[in-house]
Amino acid sequence: MAVYTDVAAEDLAEFLKGYDIGELLSYKGIAEGVENSNFSMHTSKGSYILTLYEKRVAEDDLPYFLSLMAHLAERGVNCPQPAKDRSGAVYSTLAGRPAAIINFLEGMWPRRPNAVHCAGVGEALAKMHLAGRDFPLFRANPLSVSGWRPLFDRAADRADSVQMGLRDFIARELEYLEARWPNDLPVGVIHADLFPDNVFFLGDKLSGLIDFPFACNDILAYDVAICLNAWCFEPDHSFNVTKARALLNAYGRTRALSEAEQKALPLLARGAALRFLLTRLVDFLNVPPGALVKPKDPLEYVRKLRFQQGVASLNDYGVTPAGWAA
Amino acid sequence: MAVYTDVAAEDLAEFLKGYDIGELLSYKGIAEGVENSNFSMHTSKGSYILTLYEKRVAEDDLPYFLSLMAHLAERGVNCPQPAKDRSGAVYSTLAGRPAAIINFLEGMWPRRPNAVHCAGVGEALAKMHLAGRDFPLFRANPLSVSGWRPLFDRAADRADSVQMGLRDFIARELEYLEARWPNDLPVGVIHADLFPDNVFFLGDKLSGLIDFPFACNDILAYDVAICLNAWCFEPDHSFNVTKARALLNAYGRTRALSEAEQKALPLLARGAALRFLLTRLVDFLNVPPGALVKPKDPLEYVRKLRFQQGVASLNDYGVTPAGWAA
Repeated sequence: MAVYTDVAAEDLAEFLKGYDIGELLSYKGIAEGVENSNFSMHTSKGSYILTLYEKRVAEDDLPYFLSLMAHLAERGVNCPQPAKDRSGAVYSTLAGRPAAIINFLEGMWPRRPNAVHCAGVGEALAKMHLAGRDFPLFRANPLSVSGWRPLFDRAADRADSVQMGLRDFIARELEYLEARWPNDLPVGVIHADLFPDNVFFLGDKLSGLIDFPFACNDILAYDVAICLNAWCFEPDHSFNVTKARALLNAYGRTRALSEAEQKALPLLARGAALRFLLTRLVDFLNVPPGALVKPKDPLEYVRKLRFQQGVASLNDYGVTPAGWAA
Repeated sequence: MAVYTDVAAEDLAEFLKGYDIGELLSYKGIAEGVENSNFSMHTSKGSYILTLYEKRVAEDDLPYFLSLMAHLAERGVNCPQPAKDRSGAVYSTLAGRPAAIINFLEGMWPRRPNAVHCAGVGEALAKMHLAGRDFPLFRANPLSVSGWRPLFDRAADRADSVQMGLRDFIARELEYLEARWPNDLPVGVIHADLFPDNVFFLGDKLSGLIDFPFACNDILAYDVAICLNAWCFEPDHSFNVTKARALLNAYGRTRALSEAEQKALPLLARGAALRFLLTRLVDFLNVPPGALVKPKDPLEYVRKLRFQQGVASLNDYGVTPAGWAA
């Protein structure tokens, strides 16, 4: 549930005078995102989302991901397009916070993703990677391999209170990955958080990718690995090869994974699992008492990591990449 | 901030097949209301609000206030109209909860109400009272005079922890009002919670009255008294006679207050102040530790009550009701 900064109607109507998006008709705080305050807004010209960036989002990063959305949308990626104010800026200040307006995308995120959804996300991710090739800004990934040990340091002392042996399990995995993390794979703009709740569909058709605050420059195939973990496990924690095949084949048809990328994918998927395990663990250990927001279960990602540790090659994902190998 | 029950897109799309309001295009949980889960929803036919009633709303009361909205909307009151499903029902079940769909009203509630807003709400309240005259259902007001002592009993022991002397202050007021509460004034359907956040405006024009879960049958002028307290005090707690005059004159021009109602209004306003003082006090004393929802300040209503205790007649509200006395 979103942090919720109220904005006075009078102030918002005034703010909108700086844009060419019509007269304010209504706005409501929406319960989406946990980092920012978001409002669904109707104007005489259409529907929009207004976001007030709370302190956890560094204002320095706003130009990166707002420009990225504009860049991708211009290249046909289904993602929100930031509205520019009359001075051409993609964000401004409202209620004392950085504020941006994006167009409203119709669509719903799938609570029970099926293989068709997985194919849709694979294709869209590849298109996004291609469309991002000429994006001129750079943002390092603070949650790539070098960011994991500091997270572990914050959680190590209490990790075993969540599950006995978890501290050692993570320590070993971290050493393993730090020693082997690749530095020669194709890099580019990645979404880095393409979970089902960030992908909209109308029926089976993908209508939009949203929520870019984790977007950054990193290994492209690492983004694929994040999606494998986020989309291809069942609620009972089993890995669904039909979904993985749909996702990887759809990705590969649009942007072929090189042999090096294919070979690295299981390792990248271990890293992706460790990254979400660590952030969830830190969040879990630092929930304020009585908070309404239930932390996500870190152990879900322990199970995913164990699965990925056992993967030898793409065959274990149900894929024979003959058709799209580069 | 609303309690938030998630609904799967797949389940909602299926649910909407029971209605004739088009295909689901999007829906988002909105941060409005504290009793229920609310979603702003776009379909191929328009915009709607979906409400899932959480346990604090007795399902027995749903027919009353959903039918009331339909009744009022049919008579030209600007309020949401419940959508009927294909069987004609105004509510059904979704995600294990009673669920209703109403049409979306454009407009914003005024964070800084002015006298024009107050006139708008006065006129709309009177129209609502007139339109409700032939509403056939009945619901007693659980928060009228007979409901106050049970609330006081829940708060009395700890009232002085909020403000020294508060317990005696309330006890004396309660005795005073119980002894004098009128039983011969015109009654009918009242909104009973017409605070600024329940009234939408587009510019200066009132576009809608929303949120009817407190609606009931009670003294009509008591509804006016609730509005006087809710709309006519400034943030510094001073009473604004210009606003009161605007509200009362606009009400009186549409539905004239009888002499008995005029005479009773200051007493009713004391009662209205005590009612919100008591519910806020109970809420304030029972906030779960760490809750994100900040309780409303009960002392605001102590100040309003003290003001109303000093009111002798409508003249103290800035009104000379010669023009509209019945």
